[in-house]
Amino acid sequence: MWQLDILPTAQSVDSEQISNSTACVIDVLRATSVITTALANGATQVVAVATTDEALQYRRQNASGFLLGGERNADKIDGFDLDNSPLRYTPEVVAGKTIVLTTTNGTLALSKCRRCRQTLVASLLNTSATIEYLSQHSCDITIVCAGTEGRFSLEDALCAGMIADALRHRFRLTDFALAMAQMYNSACAELKHFASQGFHYQRLVQKGYAADIDFCFDTSKQLPVVVCEGETCRLG
Amino acid sequence: MWQLDILPTAQSVDSEQISNSTACVIDVLRATSVITTALANGATQVVAVATTDEALQYRRQNASGFLLGGERNADKIDGFDLDNSPLRYTPEVVAGKTIVLTTTNGTLALSKCRRCRQTLVASLLNTSATIEYLSQHSCDITIVCAGTEGRFSLEDALCAGMIADALRHRFRLTDFALAMAQMYNSACAELKHFASQGFHYQRLVQKGYAADIDFCFDTSKQLPVVVCEGETCRLG
Repeated sequence: MWQLDILPTAQSVDSEQISNSTACVIDVLRATSVITTALANGATQVVAVATTDEALQYRRQNASGFLLGGERNADKIDGFDLDNSPLRYTPEVVAGKTIVLTTTNGTLALSKCRRCRQTLVASLLNTSATIEYLSQHSCDITIVCAGTEGRFSLEDALCAGMIADALRHRFRLTDFALAMAQMYNSACAELKHFASQGFHYQRLVQKGYAADIDFCFDTSKQLPVVVCEGETCRLG
Repeated sequence: MWQLDILPTAQSVDSEQISNSTACVIDVLRATSVITTALANGATQVVAVATTDEALQYRRQNASGFLLGGERNADKIDGFDLDNSPLRYTPEVVAGKTIVLTTTNGTLALSKCRRCRQTLVASLLNTSATIEYLSQHSCDITIVCAGTEGRFSLEDALCAGMIADALRHRFRLTDFALAMAQMYNSACAELKHFASQGFHYQRLVQKGYAADIDFCFDTSKQLPVVVCEGETCRLG
Protein backbone atom coordinates (compact mmCIF):
# COMPACT_ATOMS: atom_id res chain seq x y z
CA MET A 1 0.00 0.00 0.00
CA TRP A 2 1.38 3.42 -0.92
CA GLN A 3 1.91 5.97 1.83
CA LEU A 4 0.28 9.37 2.30
CA ASP A 5 2.26 11.79 4.45
CA ILE A 6 1.62 15.42 5.41
CA LEU A 7 4.42 17.90 6.15
CA PRO A 8 3.57 20.79 8.50
CA THR A 9 5.53 23.63 6.83
CA ALA A 10 7.45 24.49 3.66
CA GLN A 11 10.58 24.66 5.83
CA SER A 12 10.17 21.05 6.97
CA VAL A 13 10.37 19.71 3.38
CA ASP A 14 13.43 17.62 2.53
CA SER A 15 13.33 17.88 -1.28
CA GLU A 16 15.47 14.79 -1.78
CA GLN A 17 13.42 12.64 0.58
CA ILE A 18 10.11 13.35 -1.20
CA SER A 19 11.46 13.16 -4.77
CA ASN A 20 9.70 9.83 -5.39
CA SER A 21 6.34 11.21 -4.23
CA THR A 22 3.59 13.09 -5.92
CA ALA A 23 3.47 16.35 -3.96
CA CYS A 24 0.41 18.44 -3.22
CA VAL A 25 1.10 21.99 -2.03
CA ILE A 26 -1.47 23.81 0.11
CA ASP A 27 -1.52 27.47 1.13
CA VAL A 28 -5.20 28.13 1.73
CA LEU A 29 -4.68 31.76 2.84
CA ARG A 30 -4.01 32.62 0.09
CA ALA A 31 -1.43 31.57 -2.50
CA THR A 32 -2.90 28.26 -3.66
CA SER A 33 -6.43 29.71 -3.55
CA VAL A 34 -5.17 32.49 -5.84
CA ILE A 35 -3.49 30.03 -8.23
CA THR A 36 -6.59 27.81 -8.39
CA THR A 37 -8.90 30.80 -8.96
CA ALA A 38 -6.72 32.48 -11.58
CA LEU A 39 -6.48 29.30 -13.67
CA ALA A 40 -10.18 28.49 -13.29
CA ASN A 41 -10.93 32.04 -14.45
CA GLY A 42 -8.94 31.59 -17.64
CA ALA A 43 -5.33 32.52 -16.88
CA THR A 44 -3.11 30.50 -19.24
CA GLN A 45 -0.58 29.68 -16.57
CA VAL A 46 0.69 30.81 -13.18
CA VAL A 47 4.46 31.07 -12.85
CA ALA A 48 5.44 30.95 -9.17
CA VAL A 49 8.71 32.75 -8.42
CA ALA A 50 10.55 33.07 -5.11
CA THR A 51 11.46 36.77 -5.13
CA THR A 52 10.10 40.16 -6.12
CA ASP A 53 13.22 40.62 -8.25
CA GLU A 54 12.46 37.50 -10.29
CA ALA A 55 8.96 38.82 -10.98
CA LEU A 56 10.28 42.22 -12.06
CA GLN A 57 12.89 40.50 -14.24
CA TYR A 58 10.05 38.61 -15.95
CA ARG A 59 8.53 41.99 -16.78
CA ARG A 60 11.78 43.23 -18.28
CA GLN A 61 12.06 40.13 -20.48
CA ASN A 62 8.44 39.98 -21.66
CA ALA A 63 6.51 42.68 -23.50
CA SER A 64 2.91 41.86 -22.62
CA GLY A 65 0.38 39.15 -21.85
CA PHE A 66 1.19 38.84 -18.18
CA LEU A 67 0.39 40.29 -14.78
CA LEU A 68 2.58 40.41 -11.67
CA GLY A 69 0.83 39.33 -8.47
CA GLY A 70 1.64 38.42 -4.89
CA GLU A 71 2.31 39.77 -1.42
CA ARG A 72 4.84 40.65 1.23
CA ASN A 73 3.50 40.88 4.79
CA ALA A 74 0.11 39.98 3.24
CA ASP A 75 -0.01 43.27 1.28
CA LYS A 76 0.44 44.20 -2.40
CA ILE A 77 4.03 44.63 -3.64
CA ASP A 78 5.05 48.05 -5.01
CA GLY A 79 4.86 48.11 -8.80
CA PHE A 80 2.86 44.87 -9.04
CA ASP A 81 -0.47 44.60 -10.89
CA LEU A 82 -2.29 42.46 -8.35
CA ASP A 83 -2.10 41.64 -4.66
CA ASN A 84 -2.64 38.18 -3.15
CA SER A 85 -6.43 38.42 -2.99
CA PRO A 86 -8.24 35.77 -5.06
CA LEU A 87 -11.09 38.28 -5.49
CA ARG A 88 -8.90 40.31 -7.88
CA TYR A 89 -8.24 37.37 -10.20
CA THR A 90 -11.54 37.66 -12.09
CA PRO A 91 -12.07 36.39 -15.66
CA GLU A 92 -12.07 40.02 -16.88
CA VAL A 93 -8.61 40.57 -15.41
CA VAL A 94 -6.80 37.25 -15.93
CA ALA A 95 -8.29 35.48 -18.98
CA GLY A 96 -5.57 34.60 -21.50
CA LYS A 97 -2.84 36.04 -19.28
CA THR A 98 0.22 34.56 -17.59
CA ILE A 99 0.27 35.37 -13.87
CA VAL A 100 3.73 35.76 -12.31
CA LEU A 101 3.18 35.20 -8.59
CA THR A 102 5.45 35.59 -5.59
CA THR A 103 4.25 35.03 -2.02
CA THR A 104 5.95 34.48 1.34
CA ASN A 105 5.12 30.84 2.03
CA GLY A 106 3.28 29.29 -0.92
CA THR A 107 5.87 29.82 -3.60
CA LEU A 108 8.62 28.57 -1.24
CA ALA A 109 6.65 25.36 -0.70
CA LEU A 110 6.27 24.93 -4.46
CA SER A 111 9.97 25.40 -5.11
CA LYS A 112 10.78 22.76 -2.47
CA CYS A 113 8.73 20.23 -4.49
CA ARG A 114 10.53 20.84 -7.77
CA ARG A 115 12.11 17.37 -7.83
CA CYS A 116 8.90 15.43 -7.14
CA ARG A 117 7.36 13.05 -9.70
CA GLN A 118 4.50 15.47 -10.04
CA THR A 119 3.26 18.46 -8.07
CA LEU A 120 -0.34 19.55 -7.56
CA VAL A 121 -1.61 22.76 -6.03
CA ALA A 122 -4.63 22.43 -3.79
CA SER A 123 -6.89 24.73 -1.79
CA LEU A 124 -10.34 24.40 -0.29
CA LEU A 125 -11.63 25.55 -3.70
CA ASN A 126 -10.54 22.41 -5.59
CA THR A 127 -10.29 19.70 -2.94
CA SER A 128 -12.83 17.34 -4.52
CA ALA A 129 -11.08 17.32 -7.90
CA THR A 130 -7.70 16.93 -6.19
CA ILE A 131 -8.91 13.95 -4.15
CA GLU A 132 -10.37 12.32 -7.25
CA TYR A 133 -7.10 12.88 -9.13
CA LEU A 134 -4.87 11.60 -6.31
CA SER A 135 -7.04 8.54 -5.75
CA GLN A 136 -5.84 7.25 -9.14
CA HIS A 137 -2.17 7.50 -8.10
CA SER A 138 0.05 4.47 -7.57
CA CYS A 139 2.90 6.10 -5.66
CA ASP A 140 3.55 7.80 -2.34
CA ILE A 141 1.82 11.14 -1.81
CA THR A 142 3.30 13.99 0.22
CA ILE A 143 0.98 16.86 1.07
CA VAL A 144 3.00 19.96 1.87
CA CYS A 145 1.31 22.57 4.06
CA ALA A 146 2.98 25.91 3.30
CA GLY A 147 2.50 27.23 6.83
CA THR A 148 3.16 30.80 7.92
CA GLU A 149 6.80 31.90 8.12
CA GLY A 150 7.96 28.51 9.26
CA ARG A 151 5.05 27.87 11.62
CA PHE A 152 2.27 25.31 11.26
CA SER A 153 -0.92 27.01 10.09
CA LEU A 154 -4.33 25.61 10.97
CA GLU A 155 -6.17 26.28 7.69
CA ASP A 156 -3.53 24.50 5.57
CA ALA A 157 -3.62 21.52 7.91
CA LEU A 158 -7.43 21.33 7.70
CA CYS A 159 -7.30 21.20 3.89
CA ALA A 160 -4.53 18.56 4.06
CA GLY A 161 -6.55 16.58 6.61
CA MET A 162 -9.61 16.73 4.33
CA ILE A 163 -7.62 15.13 1.50
CA ALA A 164 -5.99 12.55 3.78
CA ASP A 165 -9.33 11.63 5.33
CA ALA A 166 -10.85 11.03 1.89
CA LEU A 167 -7.90 8.87 0.75
CA ARG A 168 -7.42 6.83 3.94
CA HIS A 169 -8.73 3.61 2.40
CA ARG A 170 -6.43 3.81 -0.64
CA PHE A 171 -3.23 4.91 1.11
CA ARG A 172 -1.47 4.10 4.37
CA LEU A 173 -1.56 7.31 6.40
CA THR A 174 1.50 8.29 8.44
CA ASP A 175 0.96 9.30 12.07
CA PHE A 176 0.85 12.97 11.12
CA ALA A 177 -1.63 12.33 8.30
CA LEU A 178 -3.79 10.32 10.74
CA ALA A 179 -3.71 13.25 13.17
CA MET A 180 -4.67 15.80 10.53
CA ALA A 181 -7.45 13.57 9.12
CA GLN A 182 -8.87 13.14 12.62
CA MET A 183 -8.69 16.87 13.28
CA TYR A 184 -10.40 17.70 9.98
CA ASN A 185 -13.07 15.08 10.52
CA SER A 186 -14.02 16.43 13.92
CA ALA A 187 -14.00 20.07 12.76
CA CYS A 188 -15.54 19.75 9.29
CA ALA A 189 -19.05 20.74 10.38
CA GLU A 190 -17.68 24.14 11.40
CA LEU A 191 -14.48 24.38 9.40
CA LYS A 192 -14.24 28.15 9.18
CA HIS A 193 -15.19 28.68 12.81
CA PHE A 194 -12.49 26.27 13.93
CA ALA A 195 -9.88 27.77 11.60
CA SER A 196 -10.74 31.26 12.85
CA GLN A 197 -8.76 30.52 16.02
CA GLY A 198 -5.57 30.37 13.96
CA PHE A 199 -2.80 32.98 14.01
CA HIS A 200 -2.57 33.71 10.27
CA TYR A 201 -6.37 33.75 9.87
CA GLN A 202 -6.67 36.34 12.62
CA ARG A 203 -3.84 38.43 11.22
CA LEU A 204 -5.58 38.59 7.82
CA VAL A 205 -8.83 39.66 9.49
CA GLN A 206 -6.97 42.41 11.34
CA LYS A 207 -5.46 43.57 8.05
CA GLY A 208 -8.90 43.84 6.44
CA TYR A 209 -8.89 40.67 4.33
CA ALA A 210 -12.02 39.04 5.78
CA ALA A 211 -13.69 38.90 2.33
CA ASP A 212 -10.69 36.94 1.01
CA ILE A 213 -11.09 34.43 3.83
CA ASP A 214 -14.79 33.99 3.04
CA PHE A 215 -13.85 33.31 -0.57
CA CYS A 216 -11.06 30.85 0.29
CA PHE A 217 -13.33 28.84 2.63
CA ASP A 218 -16.15 28.45 0.10
CA THR A 219 -15.80 24.70 -0.44
CA SER A 220 -18.78 24.70 -2.83
CA LYS A 221 -16.74 26.13 -5.73
CA GLN A 222 -15.48 22.74 -6.99
CA LEU A 223 -12.71 24.12 -9.19
CA PRO A 224 -10.46 21.81 -11.27
CA VAL A 225 -7.12 20.16 -10.49
CA VAL A 226 -3.97 22.27 -10.83
CA VAL A 227 -0.74 20.59 -11.96
CA CYS A 228 2.73 22.19 -11.94
CA GLU A 229 5.82 21.59 -14.03
CA GLY A 230 8.74 23.23 -12.32
CA GLU A 231 7.41 26.63 -11.32
CA THR A 232 4.61 26.71 -13.87
CA CYS A 233 1.07 25.76 -12.80
CA ARG A 234 -1.74 24.92 -15.22
CA LEU A 235 -5.16 23.29 -15.07
CA GLY A 236 -4.73 19.50 -14.93
CA MET B 1 -2.09 35.74 28.11
CA TRP B 2 0.81 33.26 28.12
CA GLN B 3 1.24 30.93 25.17
CA LEU B 4 1.06 27.15 25.07
CA ASP B 5 2.89 25.55 22.15
CA ILE B 6 3.47 21.91 21.19
CA LEU B 7 6.51 20.71 19.26
CA PRO B 8 6.08 17.55 17.17
CA THR B 9 9.49 15.90 17.73
CA ALA B 10 12.64 16.15 19.85
CA GLN B 11 14.49 17.06 16.67
CA SER B 12 12.27 20.10 16.07
CA VAL B 13 13.25 21.71 19.40
CA ASP B 14 15.28 24.92 19.20
CA SER B 15 16.74 24.95 22.73
CA GLU B 16 17.47 28.67 22.63
CA GLN B 17 13.99 29.60 21.41
CA ILE B 18 12.20 27.79 24.24
CA SER B 19 14.60 28.79 27.04
CA ASN B 20 12.02 31.17 28.57
CA SER B 21 9.35 28.46 28.65
CA THR B 22 8.44 25.78 31.08
CA ALA B 23 8.92 22.60 29.06
CA CYS B 24 6.93 19.40 29.36
CA VAL B 25 8.49 16.34 27.70
CA ILE B 26 6.27 13.47 26.53
CA ASP B 27 7.33 10.03 25.32
CA VAL B 28 4.30 7.89 26.11
CA LEU B 29 5.78 4.71 24.57
CA ARG B 30 7.70 4.43 26.76
CA ALA B 31 10.42 6.64 28.30
CA THR B 32 8.31 9.15 30.19
CA SER B 33 5.91 6.40 31.31
CA VAL B 34 8.94 4.56 32.72
CA ILE B 35 10.26 7.68 34.49
CA THR B 36 6.84 8.47 35.98
CA THR B 37 6.32 4.88 37.13
CA ALA B 38 9.81 4.42 38.58
CA LEU B 39 9.52 7.59 40.68
CA ALA B 40 5.96 6.82 41.80
CA ASN B 41 7.22 3.37 42.87
CA GLY B 42 9.90 4.83 45.12
CA ALA B 43 12.99 5.39 42.96
CA THR B 44 14.94 8.32 44.47
CA GLN B 45 15.69 9.87 41.08
CA VAL B 46 15.93 9.06 37.41
CA VAL B 47 19.06 10.31 35.65
CA ALA B 48 18.44 10.52 31.90
CA VAL B 49 21.59 10.12 29.82
CA ALA B 50 22.02 10.29 26.05
CA THR B 51 24.26 7.29 25.42
CA THR B 52 24.88 3.74 26.57
CA ASP B 53 28.46 4.75 27.33
CA GLU B 54 27.35 7.45 29.75
CA ALA B 55 25.22 4.92 31.59
CA LEU B 56 28.09 2.44 31.82
CA GLN B 57 30.41 5.23 32.98
CA TYR B 58 27.93 5.94 35.79
CA ARG B 59 28.35 2.31 36.84
CA ARG B 60 32.12 2.63 36.90
CA GLN B 61 31.93 5.74 39.07
CA ASN B 62 29.32 4.51 41.55
CA ALA B 63 29.47 1.43 43.73
CA SER B 64 25.80 0.67 44.34
CA GLY B 65 22.30 2.07 44.83
CA PHE B 66 21.47 2.37 41.16
CA LEU B 67 20.11 0.42 38.21
CA LEU B 68 20.81 0.94 34.51
CA GLY B 69 17.71 0.96 32.29
CA GLY B 70 16.66 1.81 28.77
CA GLU B 71 16.46 0.57 25.21
CA ARG B 72 17.92 0.57 21.75
CA ASN B 73 15.54 -0.48 18.95
CA ALA B 74 12.94 -0.90 21.72
CA ASP B 75 14.90 -3.78 23.32
CA LYS B 76 17.06 -4.13 26.46
CA ILE B 77 20.67 -2.99 26.20
CA ASP B 78 23.42 -5.58 26.81
CA GLY B 79 24.71 -5.39 30.36
CA PHE B 80 21.85 -3.22 31.61
CA ASP B 81 19.65 -4.17 34.59
CA LEU B 82 16.31 -3.15 33.10
CA ASP B 83 14.75 -2.64 29.69
CA ASN B 84 12.33 0.18 28.81
CA SER B 85 9.21 -1.59 30.07
CA PRO B 86 7.41 0.28 32.89
CA LEU B 87 6.20 -3.12 34.15
CA ARG B 88 9.75 -3.90 35.34
CA TYR B 89 10.02 -0.76 37.48
CA THR B 90 8.08 -2.19 40.46
CA PRO B 91 8.47 -0.97 44.06
CA GLU B 92 10.41 -4.16 44.89
CA VAL B 93 12.95 -3.39 42.16
CA VAL B 94 13.33 0.41 42.24
CA ALA B 95 12.53 1.68 45.77
CA GLY B 96 15.39 3.78 47.13
CA LYS B 97 17.39 3.39 43.94
CA THR B 98 18.72 5.81 41.32
CA ILE B 99 17.68 4.79 37.82
CA VAL B 100 20.13 5.70 35.04
CA LEU B 101 18.04 5.69 31.87
CA THR B 102 18.95 5.99 28.20
CA THR B 103 16.37 5.72 25.43
CA THR B 104 16.30 6.64 21.73
CA ASN B 105 13.88 9.55 21.73
CA GLY B 106 12.83 10.47 25.27
CA THR B 107 16.23 11.25 26.72
CA LEU B 108 17.11 13.30 23.60
CA ALA B 109 13.97 15.39 24.10
CA LEU B 110 14.90 15.95 27.76
CA SER B 111 18.42 17.06 26.91
CA LYS B 112 17.04 19.57 24.39
CA CYS B 113 15.07 21.23 27.23
CA ARG B 114 18.06 21.66 29.53
CA ARG B 115 17.99 25.47 29.27
CA CYS B 116 14.29 25.90 30.01
CA ARG B 117 13.01 27.65 33.15
CA GLN B 118 11.72 24.33 34.35
CA THR B 119 11.15 20.93 32.74
CA LEU B 120 8.41 18.45 33.56
CA VAL B 121 8.06 14.88 32.35
CA ALA B 122 4.55 13.77 31.46
CA SER B 123 2.84 10.61 30.27
CA LEU B 124 -0.74 9.40 30.22
CA LEU B 125 -0.06 8.11 33.76
CA ASN B 126 0.31 11.55 35.36
CA THR B 127 -1.58 13.90 33.05
CA SER B 128 -4.05 15.18 35.66
CA ALA B 129 -1.33 16.18 38.12
CA THR B 130 0.69 17.75 35.29
CA ILE B 131 -2.31 19.80 34.11
CA GLU B 132 -3.00 20.97 37.67
CA TYR B 133 0.66 21.93 38.13
CA LEU B 134 0.95 23.76 34.79
CA SER B 135 -2.32 25.62 35.33
CA GLN B 136 -0.55 27.56 38.12
CA HIS B 137 2.20 28.73 35.75
CA SER B 138 2.64 32.34 34.67
CA CYS B 139 4.95 31.83 31.70
CA ASP B 140 4.92 30.28 28.25
CA ILE B 141 4.62 26.50 28.13
CA THR B 142 6.24 24.32 25.46
CA ILE B 143 5.14 20.72 25.32
CA VAL B 144 7.78 18.62 23.56
CA CYS B 145 6.60 15.39 21.96
CA ALA B 146 9.62 13.08 21.76
CA GLY B 147 8.41 11.39 18.59
CA THR B 148 9.98 8.31 17.04
CA GLU B 149 13.37 8.75 15.37
CA GLY B 150 12.56 12.22 14.18
CA ARG B 151 8.99 11.45 13.16
CA PHE B 152 5.77 12.69 14.75
CA SER B 153 4.24 9.94 16.88
CA LEU B 154 0.50 9.77 17.47
CA GLU B 155 0.49 8.68 21.14
CA ASP B 156 2.77 11.55 22.24
CA ALA B 157 0.60 14.03 20.37
CA LEU B 158 -2.57 12.70 22.02
CA CYS B 159 -1.06 13.18 25.48
CA ALA B 160 0.11 16.68 24.51
CA GLY B 161 -3.34 17.46 23.09
CA MET B 162 -4.96 16.29 26.32
CA ILE B 163 -2.88 18.77 28.32
CA ALA B 164 -3.44 21.60 25.81
CA ASP B 165 -7.18 20.95 25.73
CA ALA B 166 -7.38 21.18 29.52
CA LEU B 167 -5.37 24.41 29.65
CA ARG B 168 -6.99 26.23 26.69
CA HIS B 169 -8.80 28.75 28.87
CA ARG B 170 -5.67 29.73 30.78
CA PHE B 171 -3.22 29.89 27.87
CA ARG B 172 -3.30 31.07 24.27
CA LEU B 173 -2.84 27.93 22.16
CA THR B 174 -0.68 28.10 19.04
CA ASP B 175 -2.09 26.66 15.82
CA PHE B 176 -0.33 23.35 16.43
CA ALA B 177 -1.59 23.18 20.02
CA LEU B 178 -5.13 23.94 18.76
CA ALA B 179 -4.79 21.10 16.24
CA MET B 180 -3.56 18.60 18.83
CA ALA B 181 -6.25 19.63 21.35
CA GLN B 182 -8.95 19.16 18.71
CA MET B 183 -7.53 15.77 17.72
CA TYR B 184 -7.36 14.61 21.34
CA ASN B 185 -10.85 15.87 22.07
CA SER B 186 -12.38 13.97 19.19
CA ALA B 187 -10.47 10.76 19.95
CA CYS B 188 -10.56 10.72 23.75
CA ALA B 189 -13.49 8.31 23.99
CA GLU B 190 -11.37 5.68 22.25
CA LEU B 191 -7.85 6.92 22.86
CA LYS B 192 -6.04 3.59 22.67
CA HIS B 193 -8.00 2.43 19.63
CA PHE B 194 -7.14 5.63 17.76
CA ALA B 195 -3.47 5.49 18.82
CA SER B 196 -3.26 1.87 17.69
CA GLN B 197 -3.10 3.07 14.07
CA GLY B 198 0.28 4.67 14.80
CA PHE B 199 3.62 3.40 13.49
CA HIS B 200 5.53 3.15 16.79
CA TYR B 201 2.53 1.61 18.58
CA GLN B 202 2.28 -1.10 15.94
CA ARG B 203 6.00 -1.75 16.00
CA LEU B 204 5.91 -2.30 19.77
CA VAL B 205 2.99 -4.72 19.38
CA GLN B 206 4.95 -6.64 16.74
CA LYS B 207 7.92 -6.80 19.09
CA GLY B 208 5.76 -8.32 21.86
CA TYR B 209 5.30 -5.25 24.06
CA ALA B 210 1.48 -5.14 24.04
CA ALA B 211 1.34 -5.39 27.86
CA ASP B 212 3.54 -2.30 28.13
CA ILE B 213 1.15 -0.40 25.89
CA ASP B 214 -1.83 -1.42 28.04
CA PHE B 215 0.05 -0.13 31.07
CA CYS B 216 1.05 3.17 29.43
CA PHE B 217 -2.53 3.89 28.31
CA ASP B 218 -4.08 3.33 31.74
CA THR B 219 -5.11 6.92 32.42
CA SER B 220 -6.68 5.94 35.75
CA LYS B 221 -3.31 5.69 37.52
CA GLN B 222 -3.15 9.39 38.48
CA LEU B 223 0.55 9.44 39.35
CA PRO B 224 2.29 12.62 40.61
CA VAL B 225 4.11 15.40 38.78
CA VAL B 226 7.72 14.77 37.73
CA VAL B 227 10.15 17.71 37.67
CA CYS B 228 13.69 17.65 36.22
CA GLU B 229 16.80 19.60 37.03
CA GLY B 230 19.25 19.15 34.22
CA GLU B 231 19.14 15.44 33.50
CA THR B 232 17.81 14.43 36.92
CA CYS B 233 14.06 13.78 37.33
CA ARG B 234 12.30 13.61 40.67
CA LEU B 235 8.72 13.72 41.97
CA GLY B 236 7.53 17.33 42.03
